[in-house]
Amino acid sequence: MPKISQKGMDMPASPIRKLTPFADQAKKEGKKIYHLNIGQPDIQTPEVMLNALKNIDFKVWAYTPSEGTASYRTKLASYYNKLNYNIEPTDILVTNGGSEAITIAMQACLNPGEEVIIPEPFYANYNGFACSSDIVIKPIMSHIENGFALPSIADFEKLITEKTKAIAICNPNNPTGYLYSREELEALRELCLKYDLYLFSDEAYREFCYDGREFISPMHLEGLENNVVVFDTVSKRYSACGARIGCLITKNKELYQTALKFAQARLSPSLEGQIAGEAAVDTPDAYFEAVSKEYTARRDTLVKGLNQIKGVFCPNPGGAFYVVARLPIDNADKFCQWILESFSYENETVMMAPATGFYSTIGFGLNEVRLAYVLNQEDLKKALVCLEKALEAYPGRKEGQ
Amino acid sequence: MPKISQKGMDMPASPIRKLTPFADQAKKEGKKIYHLNIGQPDIQTPEVMLNALKNIDFKVWAYTPSEGTASYRTKLASYYNKLNYNIEPTDILVTNGGSEAITIAMQACLNPGEEVIIPEPFYANYNGFACSSDIVIKPIMSHIENGFALPSIADFEKLITEKTKAIAICNPNNPTGYLYSREELEALRELCLKYDLYLFSDEAYREFCYDGREFISPMHLEGLENNVVVFDTVSKRYSACGARIGCLITKNKELYQTALKFAQARLSPSLEGQIAGEAAVDTPDAYFEAVSKEYTARRDTLVKGLNQIKGVFCPNPGGAFYVVARLPIDNADKFCQWILESFSYENETVMMAPATGFYSTIGFGLNEVRLAYVLNQEDLKKALVCLEKALEAYPGRKEGQ
Ligand SMILES: Cc1ncc(COP(=O)(O)O)c(C=O)c1O
Ligand SMILES: Cc1ncc(COP(=O)(O)O)c(C=O)c1O
Repeated sequence: MPKISQKGMDMPASPIRKLTPFADQAKKEGKKIYHLNIGQPDIQTPEVMLNALKNIDFKVWAYTPSEGTASYRTKLASYYNKLNYNIEPTDILVTNGGSEAITIAMQACLNPGEEVIIPEPFYANYNGFACSSDIVIKPIMSHIENGFALPSIADFEKLITEKTKAIAICNPNNPTGYLYSREELEALRELCLKYDLYLFSDEAYREFCYDGREFISPMHLEGLENNVVVFDTVSKRYSACGARIGCLITKNKELYQTALKFAQARLSPSLEGQIAGEAAVDTPDAYFEAVSKEYTARRDTLVKGLNQIKGVFCPNPGGAFYVVARLPIDNADKFCQWILESFSYENETVMMAPATGFYSTIGFGLNEVRLAYVLNQEDLKKALVCLEKALEAYPGRKEGQ
Repeated sequence: MPKISQKGMDMPASPIRKLTPFADQAKKEGKKIYHLNIGQPDIQTPEVMLNALKNIDFKVWAYTPSEGTASYRTKLASYYNKLNYNIEPTDILVTNGGSEAITIAMQACLNPGEEVIIPEPFYANYNGFACSSDIVIKPIMSHIENGFALPSIADFEKLITEKTKAIAICNPNNPTGYLYSREELEALRELCLKYDLYLFSDEAYREFCYDGREFISPMHLEGLENNVVVFDTVSKRYSACGARIGCLITKNKELYQTALKFAQARLSPSLEGQIAGEAAVDTPDAYFEAVSKEYTARRDTLVKGLNQIKGVFCPNPGGAFYVVARLPIDNADKFCQWILESFSYENETVMMAPATGFYSTIGFGLNEVRLAYVLNQEDLKKALVCLEKALEAYPGRKEGQ
């Protein structure tokens, strides 16, 4: 039998999916599970987008240009330019979800063994993309005490070596929900210019900023034209995760042409996804206002509820739809398995993501979990009760860390 | 300005797209172009498939499982089992087009620097996938004289070293249209077992076999369960290239689990594409009969027409919708550019793919072009006239090679 590649063996399994068998078993036993573990929103996709899909009128479901259709890229550029990104359609490369944009950028920018610095905890699939691209993630610790703010520039500089090629941020952040300030981005700007680094900006959650706070992108900062690569996606903005349409944006022409070669090899993003994505740009403001209101209320419910549970601490994040909370437990992996396997309250339980999966420094996140507020408030409240009872009953309870 | 990666520089640009600027210019000048250069069929997508897309009724456009939906995989398995593949839904991993299946298999099976032997000429994008996966393609020459039949097993054995990990075939072949015989596949079976190699079988054109000839897959051969990886796609079968739905099939459980990790990192194939793909399995036989009749007639027109042009030789392929023809020219790249740039007949011209892009051995394919018979017969005939006149007028004409 031929051998699997080393990369195949090294490739991390999705940490979130490790718990799936236990959830399946719990379901079989008739338990109701509150799924706070994944970033699949329950929010309805805008009607303009679904209607565009239903009204497709092509007879031949054909490839589009590898970089995306001209009309979608033009429309997308208008969306970004409303946000003052000041870009051309030719700066946009349409991809199979944000995921593909990340892989292409890693491969086009970094040589095998070169490093990208990423504040941890970070989106776990960056590990998979780095593995498949043979590049190295250098984590830089952010802390729950200050809500997972950007680590100090001095801390970044300690990690910068000959091999450092890029810094990556996710803003607002998955898993922490942290929204970076203009000052933090300005500081990153100086750093990237000083050391000639790419700045990857994963903006999957751009639309989800709360409390009237402003979203700042590195695209808003001057002098970074050749450094910035934005990753974007319709997945979260329009609750259209299954459309698999994202994009890579860069004003660096050489990089764009390089990324395009990777895109050409895989031929094309989906035609109907781009048609729907184009229609989505006309989603009425009222949609976002309603969604933002809903998420803000959910976040408030969740954060308040969590902090009222004895021994639990949860910062109040400015964006996205995740929180990372500290729990009075010995081991988040064990706890998240136990609560599915061995616990229920009124025949219900909660599925959460152990934060260990979001830290690449071993031993971190052991007493933290990520919760996605992708359920309505009624369900969130019930999930909170369930979690409180579980923490009381959990044999591995451990106070005050 | 940060540097592009070496891989980014090495990544091949699509050889077919190199001619695009010349085609655009020709169009600007008012020339009509017969596009025989790309594998985008003009055939209509089956109505069942388009209707499934129009009738989607989800409200949340959600992620599906990374391996694809259970219902699509079940339906797909039934399609394959009608062809006697004898597989389970759990042997199928749904991918973003066949393209992604190829990349995942390369990464899961081969270490950087390891080799896959592929008969050349071969599908040019294999070069891009190999580059992005850091693996090496060892070409093995097939010849126009015998219609690009499988090279001898002795020739394969000469290329096999410690580094050889896989053999890849495309059947029926792009670019040659060659359909491998049972004997050829049996010979590959022995070889793969003897040297413990993976056998990659790209079956994008499975449905397109002519003259009553039978399609044989390595899936039909016994004892190869752990070696075979099939790449498939809805792109050509249902003329649904823009749907970006393909799959990887393997009965090798360890490999499947490894491939799944790559699939998990990128989350999910498209939801609506899978819904449409599932419906497509019910495409009536009459659709395929009509398509097959049409392609057979086109092939006959094209092959006969080519062989009637002085100095041209074209084998009669058994499948797919491509031919590779030998022309009396000095240099296919120059000729294919010249015919767009400096030639027209009755204000029309032809776009073809220089075969050099399909050979990785430098200096081969210089007097060959690939023609895709993706146009109706009327247009094919006009394109043939145009080509004949062009060959008469071409300053780089070179006889009898
Ligand atoms: C931070 C972040 N980036 C990128 C992605 C990829 O999303 P997609 O490939 O669906 O666009 C996700 C999905 O959850 C994410 O959370
Ligand atoms: C031989 C071969 N394999 C794979 C593909 C990839 O097709 P897709 O990614 O559209 O499924 C193609 C497309 O032309 C092809 O010709």
